[in-house]
Amino acid sequence: MTNPLKFDSLAGVAAVVKSLPVFDQSAADAATARQAQLTKPPGALGRLEDLAIFMAGWQQAERPAIDSAQALVFAGNHGICVHGVNPFPQEVTAQMVANFEAGGAAINQLCEVSGASLSVVALELDRPTADFTQAPAMTEQECLAAMQIGADSIDLNADVLILGEMGIGNSTVAAALAHAAFGGEALDWVGAGTGSDASGMSLKAKVIAQGVARHADAHGLAQLAALGGREQAAICGAVLAARHARIPVLLDGFICTAATAPLFAADPAFLAHCQIGHASREPGHPRLCAAMGMAPILSLDMALGEGTGAALALSILRGALACHDGMATFAEAGVADG
Amino acid sequence: MTNPLKFDSLAGVAAVVKSLPVFDQSAADAATARQAQLTKPPGALGRLEDLAIFMAGWQQAERPAIDSAQALVFAGNHGICVHGVNPFPQEVTAQMVANFEAGGAAINQLCEVSGASLSVVALELDRPTADFTQAPAMTEQECLAAMQIGADSIDLNADVLILGEMGIGNSTVAAALAHAAFGGEALDWVGAGTGSDASGMSLKAKVIAQGVARHADAHGLAQLAALGGREQAAICGAVLAARHARIPVLLDGFICTAATAPLFAADPAFLAHCQIGHASREPGHPRLCAAMGMAPILSLDMALGEGTGAALALSILRGALACHDGMATFAEAGVADG
Repeated sequence: MTNPLKFDSLAGVAAVVKSLPVFDQSAADAATARQAQLTKPPGALGRLEDLAIFMAGWQQAERPAIDSAQALVFAGNHGICVHGVNPFPQEVTAQMVANFEAGGAAINQLCEVSGASLSVVALELDRPTADFTQAPAMTEQECLAAMQIGADSIDLNADVLILGEMGIGNSTVAAALAHAAFGGEALDWVGAGTGSDASGMSLKAKVIAQGVARHADAHGLAQLAALGGREQAAICGAVLAARHARIPVLLDGFICTAATAPLFAADPAFLAHCQIGHASREPGHPRLCAAMGMAPILSLDMALGEGTGAALALSILRGALACHDGMATFAEAGVADG
Repeated sequence: MTNPLKFDSLAGVAAVVKSLPVFDQSAADAATARQAQLTKPPGALGRLEDLAIFMAGWQQAERPAIDSAQALVFAGNHGICVHGVNPFPQEVTAQMVANFEAGGAAINQLCEVSGASLSVVALELDRPTADFTQAPAMTEQECLAAMQIGADSIDLNADVLILGEMGIGNSTVAAALAHAAFGGEALDWVGAGTGSDASGMSLKAKVIAQGVARHADAHGLAQLAALGGREQAAICGAVLAARHARIPVLLDGFICTAATAPLFAADPAFLAHCQIGHASREPGHPRLCAAMGMAPILSLDMALGEGTGAALALSILRGALACHDGMATFAEAGVADG
C-alpha cells in the first residue's frame, strides 16, 4: 500500500489535518471493561492499562495487537552548524547513516530486542538547510517535500510506528522549535546535545534567540519551515500519514518531540495517536512534555536520539498488550475478585 | 546443578554472608572502556550503560550476556490477615498460584514478552505465619527453611534472576519490614495494597506499629523472622544463592524490596548484585528505595507485584546488553568521534 496523502501545498496539508480520524471511544470502552475483569486489583498495571486502552482506541479493537512494528529514522543536515553549535563535524550525520545501514548503531540493537523493522531515510545530507538566523531554514516547498518523504516512508501495514532522528546540530534546531512554539527564554530549552560545554550552550541559546526573533511571525507549518530541518518535517509527515492509517506512534525523545511542537501548538489533536517513548536527559524535554501535557513512558537518563527511547518503549507496549490479551479474567481463573 | 548453600542455622547464614563473591572491578573497567568507544556521545545511553557495566562486574565478562533468564515467584500466607488488613480472602493466594500455573496472570504474559522462564513456588499456603502483633511471624527454623527453599529454587545456569511474590496481606508485611528496618512512622510506609481505603490503611498502620514495637529488639535475620512471611524469607534465600553463583538479580517492587530490608539494613552489600525493576505506586517504595540508595529502572505507576516490574525491566536490561555487545566502535564504523 502507498501512502495516499499528498502534501503539495499548505492548503493540501490543511485538508489532511481536517480529515484525520479520531480515537474510537467505543473500542476503548470495551478495552477498559476488559481490564476491569482481569486477574489483578483494579488499576494495578498502571501505565500498561492506559497503553492498552490507547492502542484499542486507535486500532479500533477491544484487544489490540502488534504483529508488525516499523521504526523509521530520518536524518538531515542543518545550516545553523555554521555557528559551531555542535562539536562534531556535519560529516558525522552521513557516517552515522552508514552505521545504521551496517547495523552498528544503538537503534539497530534496540530494534532487534524489541522486534521492530528499521529503515533509515537520509534527506539531502549534502544540502543542509539554510542558517535560520539569516533566512527560513527551508522554503515552504522544501518543507512540504520533506514531509512527503516522511509520509511515503511509512509501512501502512504496521501496527505501530517508532520515530527517531539523526542530524548533527539538531538539538539546537529542536530547542529553537520548542522555544518558538512554547515561549520562555532560549536558554530554558538548551542542553549539552552531543557534548556542548557551558560556552557551547550559551552560543546555542544566542543563535536560537536570533532565529526565533527573526521568524516570530511564523506559526504552524511556517514555523516548522523557518526553524526546522528536513528530518523534523519528515517526522511531521510520518505522524500525519500514520494518523490517517490509524497507526499509533511512539515518538523518541527531545528532538523528535520538538519536531512536532509547531504543529502541536497549532492543534494539540495532531499528537492524539502518539506517545513519547523516553524522557530525555536534555533539560528542554521535561519542559516540553509538560507544555504538551504528555508523560514519557520511560526515563533512563538517555540522550541519544535515533529512536532509541521509542524502541525501548516498544517492549513496554508489547508487555501492555500481552497482559491485556493474555491474562485470565476472574471468572476464567476462578479467582475471587474481592 | 544444585544450590550448595545450607541455611541450617543462624551461624550457617552468617558464614554464607561472609563468603559472598564481590563485584569484579576489572571486568567492569573493561566494559566501561568499551562503552567509551561505541558510536554514541559519551554517556548518551545513560542507565543502559550503567546496567551493562553492572552486568559485566557480576558476570566477570567485558561483554556480559543473557542467554537464560529465570523468574521466580514465591507465594505465602500471613497471620496478620486476622486483623482484616486486606479486603481479599486468603484463599486468593492459592487461587492466584493456580492462575500462575495455568498461565493466566500478568507475570506469565510479561515473562513471555521478555523471554524469562517462570516458576512459581507456593510456601505452605495452608499454614499462614503467626500474627506478628502476638508472636514472631516465624520461628528461626521456619525462616531458615523458607530461605532454603528460596535458595534451592534458583537455576544456577541462569544469567539473570527475576524475583517476585504473591501473598494476600503482604503489603502490610512489607510495610512492617521497611518500618522496622528504616524507622519513621508506621503510616509513612503504608499504601492501598490490593485495595485498602483510608480506614483500611489506618488499620494497617496500627497493626504494623504494634508488631514493630513488639519485636523492636530483633535485627537482621531475627527481624525478618519476626515480621516477615515465608515468601519474604524465600526471596532473601534466593538473593543469597544468586549472589553465591554471581547471578545478577532484578527485584520487583515494594514488597520484594522490603523483603530484603532487614538483611540490607544489617549489611548493604547484601544487595550489591541486585537492581530494583520498578518503582511501585505504593508510597512506601520511593521512601524505601531512597533509604537504600537504589534507583528503580522503571516507573510505570504499577502496584501488582508477582515480579511484573522486574520482568518488564528485563527487556531494558536486554537492550542495554545488546547495545553494549552489538554496537560498532568509532573505529569499526569509520565515524569521527569529535
